[in-house]
Amino acid sequence: MTQNKQGQALDLKHSRILIAGAASLVGSHTADLLLKEGVREVLLLDNFAFGSMDAIAHIQDDPRVKIVRADLMRLPDLLAATEGVDGVIHLAAYMTLGFSQTPWQAVDVNIRGAQNMLEACRANKVKKVIFASSNAVYGYGTGIKGALVEQGPFHSTGAPPAAILYGASKIMGEQLCRQYHQNHGLDYVVLRYSTVYGERQHYRAANSLYIMETYDQIRSGKAPVLPGDGSETKHFVHVSDVARANVAALQSQATDVAVNVSGPAPITTGELVQLVLDYCKSDLKPEVRPDPPGKVRLTSGGAFHIPHDLAYQMIGWKPVVEMREGVNRLLAWRESKEKNQSH
Amino acid sequence: MTQNKQGQALDLKHSRILIAGAASLVGSHTADLLLKEGVREVLLLDNFAFGSMDAIAHIQDDPRVKIVRADLMRLPDLLAATEGVDGVIHLAAYMTLGFSQTPWQAVDVNIRGAQNMLEACRANKVKKVIFASSNAVYGYGTGIKGALVEQGPFHSTGAPPAAILYGASKIMGEQLCRQYHQNHGLDYVVLRYSTVYGERQHYRAANSLYIMETYDQIRSGKAPVLPGDGSETKHFVHVSDVARANVAALQSQATDVAVNVSGPAPITTGELVQLVLDYCKSDLKPEVRPDPPGKVRLTSGGAFHIPHDLAYQMIGWKPVVEMREGVNRLLAWRESKEKNQSH
Repeated sequence: MTQNKQGQALDLKHSRILIAGAASLVGSHTADLLLKEGVREVLLLDNFAFGSMDAIAHIQDDPRVKIVRADLMRLPDLLAATEGVDGVIHLAAYMTLGFSQTPWQAVDVNIRGAQNMLEACRANKVKKVIFASSNAVYGYGTGIKGALVEQGPFHSTGAPPAAILYGASKIMGEQLCRQYHQNHGLDYVVLRYSTVYGERQHYRAANSLYIMETYDQIRSGKAPVLPGDGSETKHFVHVSDVARANVAALQSQATDVAVNVSGPAPITTGELVQLVLDYCKSDLKPEVRPDPPGKVRLTSGGAFHIPHDLAYQMIGWKPVVEMREGVNRLLAWRESKEKNQSH
Repeated sequence: MTQNKQGQALDLKHSRILIAGAASLVGSHTADLLLKEGVREVLLLDNFAFGSMDAIAHIQDDPRVKIVRADLMRLPDLLAATEGVDGVIHLAAYMTLGFSQTPWQAVDVNIRGAQNMLEACRANKVKKVIFASSNAVYGYGTGIKGALVEQGPFHSTGAPPAAILYGASKIMGEQLCRQYHQNHGLDYVVLRYSTVYGERQHYRAANSLYIMETYDQIRSGKAPVLPGDGSETKHFVHVSDVARANVAALQSQATDVAVNVSGPAPITTGELVQLVLDYCKSDLKPEVRPDPPGKVRLTSGGAFHIPHDLAYQMIGWKPVVEMREGVNRLLAWRESKEKNQSH
């Protein structure tokens, strides 16, 4: 084992933090936590193509909050935005759905956008970058089993092009960070999120959308749909745990490292549907829908889990929100939102 | 096993073939072979940033040859160039060295450049695209051992950022081809070259450069340098075998598949240096240069080999040029070039 490298640890009370892709699920929760922890200033950067003012409206009047409308594809925007900034949390990215529907924009944002941000951080001597990566860097298919440790390879055989493109784009983003570290001394921590879910959930991420769809189905009195036999393993992480990881990484001395950020335990689709049924106090039986022939699953039916030992060692973080609690919080938020809208 | 898909097979006598990145080692040999096989027309596209007129000067007066100065970053250039074209061989790319020295250009050409070319091919209903990929899609490090079969994963732990960026960029190029096939019916074959060497060798590819450097060293009377203990495995492929694979892929019905294109057998660096010593009829003993501490090799010391069963099955190709013959041909060309220049 090599000695852990020591990078700069940020003291939030004296720091200006910029979040790129801030008007989002992860961005808004991270901003909330930074404000709670006494950050000096937080800059919420978004081009509002997908991001919504709704996500950050509740903090826009905080005197420490500054909203920056800028686009990752314009380096001058980023050079201006990162002036005097101490730390950047780079969240903005397209996911698998984006690589399927708008592959040109996805390539732009995930690769050139990351490169532009790193260049702006180098030019303005930003002290630390937190780069949001994904467990998509481990890939898909039957190779995904057992513990997904950080040094594992990228499996892709049988996966759809858009999923592989997404995973490879995140591998490239991570390596661009490493290159800026090696060539310019830029400190960075890569956090590999699994599927993020939680309050202020949008309808854009394919996997976490499943929780919402199941809920909608049950609420309208219909049996929830269980794809395959319900044994497929998924790994979610509650947005509050992700926000804690982002802030912990900024405050840690860790640098030049990539760590997993996922929930306490994996869950099968069958167990997940049951959690939603429990929340709804419903007796409906899930309707099993066998896969159509030739259907390729993004994850294997086999069991895998995501260890957090390295994250704990590097940034002192581990997940705390169990899946049942997280689903209950998400659905309670959803209900309260509906009630507010109906008034 | 799924049934092999049937794509369009091109009849060269009635085909216009465009080579992108044509003024190069692989491009010029492929053009030579296409002309020899009676192609109707061959368009040699290059921006001449790295490509050199020297590589294609010997065929520029053939009435079937058209030289097109164009840049992959300008889609209008490619839309104009691919009009009426039946097949495209897409070679243009930056390699590991390029991702190290000029990562912005490398990202442009390897990803957006490939995307632009595929879009132009779609718009102009090009019948078949041959995409030059690399065994870099299997990655680096201790995970590289045994047979590198086409469905293997991408290993990256411990490799330098530029090497991982290169491999990931080729994974993305392959998947962009797949996406165009699935969405638009574009036929394509991915060929994963190992390190290409041969006559008209340039000094740009880090691995094959080693043959030339060893030769230069011996010719100047100095002992050739053997990195490590000389047991490191490398896999080369002679450019004439690569040209044959490109042409075979165009003429085959194969589509939506990626196959290995490498030489008949792997070689260790120790054996390779001996081949060069043999050619030079030199008694010099290689100077073993142990790796500096912390040095990371692009390939493991362990043995690996690259099978060609799938290439033979899909495009009826297998390599024929043994390493000794190939090295002799390369060095004989080098000598004759020196003689011509000294007159």
